[in-house]
Amino acid sequence: MSKPSIPKGTRDFLPVAALRRKYIFNTCETHFKRYGYLPIETPAMENTSTLLGKYGEEGDRLIFKILNSGDFLSKVNANDLTSADSQKVSPQITEKALRYDLTVPFARFVVQNQNELTFPFKRYQIQPVWRADRPQKGRYREFFQCDIDVIGSDSLINEFELVRIATSVFADLGLNDVVIHINNRKILSGIAEILNASDKIIDLTVAIDKIDKIGLDAVNKELSEKGFSQEALEQLKPILLLGGPNSEKLATIRKTLESSEIGTKGVDELEWLIQKLDAVNTKNINVNIALARGLNYYTGAIFEVTHPDFPSSICGGGRYDDLTGIFGLKGLSGVGISFGADRIYDLLLQKDLYPKTVEQSTQVLFVNFGEQEFNYILPLAEQLRNSNLSVEIYPESAKMKKQMKYANDKNIPFVILAGAEEIQNNTVTLKNMVSGTQETIPASELLHHIH
Amino acid sequence: MSKPSIPKGTRDFLPVAALRRKYIFNTCETHFKRYGYLPIETPAMENTSTLLGKYGEEGDRLIFKILNSGDFLSKVNANDLTSADSQKVSPQITEKALRYDLTVPFARFVVQNQNELTFPFKRYQIQPVWRADRPQKGRYREFFQCDIDVIGSDSLINEFELVRIATSVFADLGLNDVVIHINNRKILSGIAEILNASDKIIDLTVAIDKIDKIGLDAVNKELSEKGFSQEALEQLKPILLLGGPNSEKLATIRKTLESSEIGTKGVDELEWLIQKLDAVNTKNINVNIALARGLNYYTGAIFEVTHPDFPSSICGGGRYDDLTGIFGLKGLSGVGISFGADRIYDLLLQKDLYPKTVEQSTQVLFVNFGEQEFNYILPLAEQLRNSNLSVEIYPESAKMKKQMKYANDKNIPFVILAGAEEIQNNTVTLKNMVSGTQETIPASELLHHIH
Repeated sequence: MSKPSIPKGTRDFLPVAALRRKYIFNTCETHFKRYGYLPIETPAMENTSTLLGKYGEEGDRLIFKILNSGDFLSKVNANDLTSADSQKVSPQITEKALRYDLTVPFARFVVQNQNELTFPFKRYQIQPVWRADRPQKGRYREFFQCDIDVIGSDSLINEFELVRIATSVFADLGLNDVVIHINNRKILSGIAEILNASDKIIDLTVAIDKIDKIGLDAVNKELSEKGFSQEALEQLKPILLLGGPNSEKLATIRKTLESSEIGTKGVDELEWLIQKLDAVNTKNINVNIALARGLNYYTGAIFEVTHPDFPSSICGGGRYDDLTGIFGLKGLSGVGISFGADRIYDLLLQKDLYPKTVEQSTQVLFVNFGEQEFNYILPLAEQLRNSNLSVEIYPESAKMKKQMKYANDKNIPFVILAGAEEIQNNTVTLKNMVSGTQETIPASELLHHIH
Repeated sequence: MSKPSIPKGTRDFLPVAALRRKYIFNTCETHFKRYGYLPIETPAMENTSTLLGKYGEEGDRLIFKILNSGDFLSKVNANDLTSADSQKVSPQITEKALRYDLTVPFARFVVQNQNELTFPFKRYQIQPVWRADRPQKGRYREFFQCDIDVIGSDSLINEFELVRIATSVFADLGLNDVVIHINNRKILSGIAEILNASDKIIDLTVAIDKIDKIGLDAVNKELSEKGFSQEALEQLKPILLLGGPNSEKLATIRKTLESSEIGTKGVDELEWLIQKLDAVNTKNINVNIALARGLNYYTGAIFEVTHPDFPSSICGGGRYDDLTGIFGLKGLSGVGISFGADRIYDLLLQKDLYPKTVEQSTQVLFVNFGEQEFNYILPLAEQLRNSNLSVEIYPESAKMKKQMKYANDKNIPFVILAGAEEIQNNTVTLKNMVSGTQETIPASELLHHIH
């Protein structure tokens, strides 16, 4: 028999990894809840009609489809079969598919359940998604998304709170060096407008993003090649050389965009947000007008969180209008962010930031010396468990060495030995596995000693 | 556009349902952890070779298969395609499938990761499974399993602890009337052995199970028809008429099975377990020799938990030998139980046992009167959140009626009003939504008042 395996791009999570993941998700949930966000769950499978056409052609190809049950070929067009036309056969043999992200299912959810929801609807959702991407380092075919969105309110208070949530989550995880980049889609529209280049927003943001690395001249050269006039480049210059504190950047952008209505609206929004964040001492906020993130999708604020020791962003999002429009419910504005759980997982590991308590599950191991000793320790184990300690009794009266190895392998800090002598004296011997010390104490004092 | 929908047999979980489910799973996890069980996760998709052939023919048919990506028909046998032979084509166009339960993936996991695990390996796993069953009331195509198993130890202490865990979980959920039925496969083998009817174990257990409903004569009649001799029925009589406390039942079974070695072994095991459970005052334990639960699977203890107000069992399990043998790792004994999350969910709902705190997420709503008022309440909201309260500021300065309706709909117990007057006096008005009372207090006393 060959050794069993799992599909490429998928993972088993062993206990330590599973505990660390739970730690990340629990930290997220704690802060989501403090702001009144509530959990929802959607099915892993959606109807293919819900998913197809929502992620572009490439996205459609990456959606895992579920084969219909039973005699799935019975209704397929005979010609399509004979010509082995996968593209034509596929929709005839699949009605369901695995979700590709949490955003489209959320839109579907809101429309389908609109009469049962309280708007503005604030939800979080932590569930796996599946993509038939080519697996590579850090890219999986099954991975978790951790999304938080509010839908049905266009107040900037929502943007403010989402940034505060991100700040709190990363602070709690010990990631104090994160930078929260903030932009606004309307500012990008304004820039394009004043340059008469609304069709070249992507070229513009790509160029702006490079300024720190390649310098003004090289960026101007690149933009010239893309067809920007000398006059346009002159107008763009203050934005390319943007620097200093956020308030200075905002003043420069405001001046540059003063002739653009939409641009000025964007500056107003961004400035309000930055001022409110400052008012509650939010650290490491960076006005970053190079930030675009799926330009066609966002309509207002755009967020991204980076860490100096990690190559890609670990959190991102923004405001979108009309997400539910694709399912027939128009006019609902929303804003949300998504935490990159796998990346955060890797970053915390790299920086050794998991609290030791996360990995340590069992706190006390009772060594098993046999039946009589088991009877003696059982009420003690129950007492410790009732005070919410994690307690194991080694299930076999195996050799001492084996039982101690078990305690070591599982990183258990306290081992309790109770043999004939301890039973006679109504004591236990408590061994501290960290310090290596041990002492014999009255059994009645065990709970107190361990706490 | 037609209203969006989800595949039949699947469900969206709205916030209240999602919170209730989390409450059940958290309660389970709390007790799992107290006994040193650790979480693992396996991928939703397994290789089809891992799953097929493990659940019988019917099971194989109910496994959801994932269509291969790309030009999936290119390598399919042309004749199979032309003849539209679904059964022959299926394995040629699918390599992956959705897991059908957590047991087979767990066995695969243990074999694949054996060098990284500490044995005895105690794990719990709470993940969805998928079955292409015909959906009906209480039966879904996607549902969660909540399994806890220890593998690599044949000590009865494991059985003892699993029963204790089940007892604690159900007590914490408020289900004090559950009955924990316990049997042992070796006792069933012993009964069959003394009757020379090892091939008729199923007929026997079915009959034993009916005794309370149809009485001794009817059971005997049924067994006669199945080919049992008058002598065999006479031997079986004490077991059919089994009653009284567990100790009495055990004495009767022991006497009846004294000539059977395996039967006596089963009684020894069951008696040890019952005595230990009695020693720590475990309530509602019922020795039930009619309990069989997938007879071919279990080799020792068999468990099932029922509740008088629910038609089917809400938890069950037992000891199995050689679960990992199907993947090439022989000789590991295991024992486990599975909590029926969906059934427990329904039962708690039916008996109105969800604590009110489970559904109530946001604890405090600040009414939004506008920009100036927002600036005033923001630090107060931050203060409450930092003390781990769940706090919302209504995002728009909407009409009072709309904001109060939001508080009502979301079941928020405290609403805070702070307008021009409150700002001037540095106070807030705190409205208790449960009692309907409200009072104006200094802003500095808000946190204290809410606690």
